[in-house]
Amino acid sequence: MNELPVVLFGVGGVGQALVRQIVENRERHARQYGLWIRFLALCDSRSAVVEPMEGLNDAQLLDILDIKTRGGSLLEHPLGGTQDDLSAILDIVGLPGTLVVDCTATEETVPALLFGLERGYKLVLANKKPLTVEQEVYDRLVRAGGTEEAPLDLARVRWETTVGAGLPVIATLNRLLASGDPIQRISGTFSGTLGYVMTGLQAGRPFSQIVQEAYEQGYTEPDPRDDLGGVDVARKALILARGMGWRLDLSDVEVAGLYPPELDELSVEEFLARLPALDASFQEQVTAAAQEGQVLRYAATIQDGRCRVGLTPVDRDSPLGRLTGTDNLVEFTSRWYSPNPLVIQGRGAGVDATAAGVLSDLVELAFTGR
Amino acid sequence: MNELPVVLFGVGGVGQALVRQIVENRERHARQYGLWIRFLALCDSRSAVVEPMEGLNDAQLLDILDIKTRGGSLLEHPLGGTQDDLSAILDIVGLPGTLVVDCTATEETVPALLFGLERGYKLVLANKKPLTVEQEVYDRLVRAGGTEEAPLDLARVRWETTVGAGLPVIATLNRLLASGDPIQRISGTFSGTLGYVMTGLQAGRPFSQIVQEAYEQGYTEPDPRDDLGGVDVARKALILARGMGWRLDLSDVEVAGLYPPELDELSVEEFLARLPALDASFQEQVTAAAQEGQVLRYAATIQDGRCRVGLTPVDRDSPLGRLTGTDNLVEFTSRWYSPNPLVIQGRGAGVDATAAGVLSDLVELAFTGR
Repeated sequence: MNELPVVLFGVGGVGQALVRQIVENRERHARQYGLWIRFLALCDSRSAVVEPMEGLNDAQLLDILDIKTRGGSLLEHPLGGTQDDLSAILDIVGLPGTLVVDCTATEETVPALLFGLERGYKLVLANKKPLTVEQEVYDRLVRAGGTEEAPLDLARVRWETTVGAGLPVIATLNRLLASGDPIQRISGTFSGTLGYVMTGLQAGRPFSQIVQEAYEQGYTEPDPRDDLGGVDVARKALILARGMGWRLDLSDVEVAGLYPPELDELSVEEFLARLPALDASFQEQVTAAAQEGQVLRYAATIQDGRCRVGLTPVDRDSPLGRLTGTDNLVEFTSRWYSPNPLVIQGRGAGVDATAAGVLSDLVELAFTGR
Repeated sequence: MNELPVVLFGVGGVGQALVRQIVENRERHARQYGLWIRFLALCDSRSAVVEPMEGLNDAQLLDILDIKTRGGSLLEHPLGGTQDDLSAILDIVGLPGTLVVDCTATEETVPALLFGLERGYKLVLANKKPLTVEQEVYDRLVRAGGTEEAPLDLARVRWETTVGAGLPVIATLNRLLASGDPIQRISGTFSGTLGYVMTGLQAGRPFSQIVQEAYEQGYTEPDPRDDLGGVDVARKALILARGMGWRLDLSDVEVAGLYPPELDELSVEEFLARLPALDASFQEQVTAAAQEGQVLRYAATIQDGRCRVGLTPVDRDSPLGRLTGTDNLVEFTSRWYSPNPLVIQGRGAGVDATAAGVLSDLVELAFTGR
């Protein structure tokens, strides 16, 4: 049996779904892959449950899920304790071949991730932040020697769910790179919320009404500006551009949000109240695009040295143009995939789809060597 | 430097493109992956060039490409010789970690592939035949212990290009399986030629005219029945069904070709001359589908224990329904990808796209362990 010791950072929605999926798939993983995943530690921002010798059994894991789903703290668990240093937990664990899984949404995990890599641990990131801070951190996380010139280390790290959740976007990018197929362009939509807004605009509805409705139905972040500003999409675009070997920072991504910056200071209610003033402009842009046989998408485009995020007219008959609703879609245009791009499409969000993608990464790393 | 010794079976279109792409990418593979691919032997059906110690250098490889592109034989090369036993060549090579790449289109390689696996060699298949003969051979090729119950060996074998050429179809299937996401349905088009025919039918053109034109322009096999009969698509459907863990043989795939079996005995010219008699029936089916908001695709569908290949009505607004032209498209419907499927779309044929997919498989296996 191939034993895979795991330390989990982050026991929120994705982390909980991951633990549940691993428990549910135990027998199948053993039978189909000869694989046994053993949790040595589960860590929150301030607390942790650690069992470095035996690993946590399924009853203990289900207890932890019970505590977390009712909003409790890991401290309530018999093995729970406070933690203020994730590296110290990795130090306690110390088992060769340990896999560190980052399901948090903070860059505070970076020192521990780097510490783990120095120990020779493997790494799965669902967390975009460590890959979108300084270029130097990115290099240390994904390259074998940690320097700009060092080779990519496909044996040691996976970050599929940082872009498009469980969709095989990074896997596809890495396959194209491995084959030496020169990528001319990556273009895609990476926000279900903004996809919903674009579909509404295309149907002729006023921008303000679509956003108000999405907000009321809980389709947006608590502050809809977190979606409409485009920064989350910009992080994904940066991960794709860096994945192509470009060297750039988040500040180099050209982000055009869907509202003017002067609305940043308002309360959410005031912000929503000001949106009708934008309706006419959006309507004009939709009409102008339609006259060219185009439709508007909120897309990330990585091409010709520029990494851009914003409202983008695309041909109505292209894969992006035919997209409706909240699905993500990414087009890779390369030497072999041109004029028609290679397209990946599907659900690009959700805790279960994301956790499933993390689990796929984890199983892949169970078979890599070094 | 990570040295990857390779033995190539098959130096036809895909094999030649693979050698060329490896030579062209040498510096990049070394820099970006710390990888050096070394050809120990290139084998045809009756001849081979073998250099088991040093490996063939790039000048020797380019010489071989020159010989092959002008239609010559490997025997013309200074290191060329006859061969009638691929296993014997693998026996000579004997280097641990050797990767055997099958770019032939024959099941005659099976004994040598199994011999290589016993030696602990890794395996990349572009050849569908070994995976579509008896179930027992499939199990021995992809499972670690070689038996029905043995675990999948993701560290040792890749077969991405047997379905959809370089498109990440098998990679996506294996990721879904690894995460335990139950797959309810796989449906896809896997023939550019038949995609062209379907697009023509949808535009209202007569079946016979579309086939005649495709034949004259060289878009079909020399005998168009090899496309229209659906057997090549059936092999791909079988590989997908077996990939899902189903146990079945090619004879269990329900294949409905696009012409009646009594036309099998005719010459190509006679066959083409008889096609206009089918035009009315196709036109009726197109019209009947349109009345239900559907269009016809020549699709493989794997669902509810049945593996079917044939003319399939699909919703006009589904990904398959919106497809036009020669691209392949595959939809995976699962627990997390439903009601909207996970979709992969793009060029599904061509020697360069296929060779690029083989090269991606090869780079991936350079990082696996065991």
